[in-house]
Amino acid sequence: MDEIAAFLRQHDRFAAHNGITLVEMSAGRAVARMALQPYHQNGAGMAHGGAIFTLGDLALAAAANAHGTIAVGINVSIQYVKAAHTGTLTATARETSLGPRLATYTVDITDGEGDTVAIMQGMVYRKRDVLPVNNGQ
Amino acid sequence: MDEIAAFLRQHDRFAAHNGITLVEMSAGRAVARMALQPYHQNGAGMAHGGAIFTLGDLALAAAANAHGTIAVGINVSIQYVKAAHTGTLTATARETSLGPRLATYTVDITDGEGDTVAIMQGMVYRKRDVLPVNNGQ
Amino acid sequence: MDEIAAFLRQHDRFAAHNGITLVEMSAGRAVARMALQPYHQNGAGMAHGGAIFTLGDLALAAAANAHGTIAVGINVSIQYVKAAHTGTLTATARETSLGPRLATYTVDITDGEGDTVAIMQGMVYRKRDVLPVNNGQ
Amino acid sequence: MDEIAAFLRQHDRFAAHNGITLVEMSAGRAVARMALQPYHQNGAGMAHGGAIFTLGDLALAAAANAHGTIAVGINVSIQYVKAAHTGTLTATARETSLGPRLATYTVDITDGEGDTVAIMQGMVYRKRDVLPVNNGQ
Repeated sequence: MDEIAAFLRQHDRFAAHNGITLVEMSAGRAVARMALQPYHQNGAGMAHGGAIFTLGDLALAAAANAHGTIAVGINVSIQYVKAAHTGTLTATARETSLGPRLATYTVDITDGEGDTVAIMQGMVYRKRDVLPVNNGQ
Repeated sequence: MDEIAAFLRQHDRFAAHNGITLVEMSAGRAVARMALQPYHQNGAGMAHGGAIFTLGDLALAAAANAHGTIAVGINVSIQYVKAAHTGTLTATARETSLGPRLATYTVDITDGEGDTVAIMQGMVYRKRDVLPVNNGQ
Repeated sequence: MDEIAAFLRQHDRFAAHNGITLVEMSAGRAVARMALQPYHQNGAGMAHGGAIFTLGDLALAAAANAHGTIAVGINVSIQYVKAAHTGTLTATARETSLGPRLATYTVDITDGEGDTVAIMQGMVYRKRDVLPVNNGQ
Repeated sequence: MDEIAAFLRQHDRFAAHNGITLVEMSAGRAVARMALQPYHQNGAGMAHGGAIFTLGDLALAAAANAHGTIAVGINVSIQYVKAAHTGTLTATARETSLGPRLATYTVDITDGEGDTVAIMQGMVYRKRDVLPVNNGQ
């Protein structure tokens, strides 16, 4: 598990570029954080829908890939329920079903006050390929 | 319209931070582009789901805000249909319904070969507030 | 609350036509049931996606309308995770956010063995109109 | 194609129970209709969200199964944009992507005046099994 987390931390460049960090990760569960910066803002001065989505997507991907085989997102929906302006957002993903080829996840995204900012529901397609972690280096 | 486009170009910091540019914009329709860079990659070396979503979200927001009043995304779903590795992605948003409070959009995201990479369906809540664009400064 | 439940039971003809019953209802929460009959089947002999959706939609509507004002569904997504053939399906809806105009719900649909059959995520628009329930007749 | 359409018409009991008819069907495209009856109403006297969804779902299933192998819906989202009270609703499904295992569809549902009532976006998982049509009986 540590190896998979290290792999994701090292290789997910888009998450790194946007200040998103993976905090916890276990099979079917993951937590990610994003401390809001000016570059996360949309034209209205709030956290951009794409930034919030990306935070949640990283948590979802970590929860899904924590099983050790590659899982790719095929369908994700997001409900935005509260605007976020400052502070740190936390995304918690948990698995709601796990099949041989498909698995589903719910992601809750909360702000510093514990209020829900957005809720995501995602489905991944599970490949047979093992994650290319730990090649003896 | 030019003022609204200029406003979005200037103020959407998250889009700028991620190399996304607004190409076209008119009431209910917008086109945005993103030339894939190494920082757009996820752990598997493909364009990150969050990057693709953010590109589509900018086009959706532009199409919705082009009416001149503030529209905020409340619900968006995305289907990922083809992985993208290099080249430029284009998102084209078009309005599928426009009501006094709610409006809906479909966004097609294609790669350099014209193949569909992802399809989004979004709904916005239309506020009464006029966009704070530059009126005569 | 009893009046609202009675109103929904009496007036939701589509639910009645399809053998769906409202079991529990309180502000932001509701449970509905559907005992599978041959007429619920699709062409492949499983419970039809539309039947499962309708069951969940009734629970969602009851949870949303239990606040006493009319709430109409504007966006719902469903993930199908296990096929259902026989027995009774149960849908449990719970509110995940409640705003003045918008509210969101998650609905879990399980079969007789307690396995998840489908998961729904819905958003409603809350009107100012009070439900036309029986006031003292 | 005629055999597949005949199979769906004969075996989709839930569609038949709810007055839904398959009008057209070809690989990746299908049209279904539903003449609104009192039993389609929800508690507010409008066409039930579940009835509208079921109409669209039949069109989607027909478009997906028209390829001759079994396709099962795994994820569907619906946006409701106009209430429907009377008349006939028409659902038109078209394929937006077709892969070996996954395919996606958009369904437009319109009323008698040609106005959009709802828009659906769905994804199916394509099994290797051939539809059990026409076994020489």
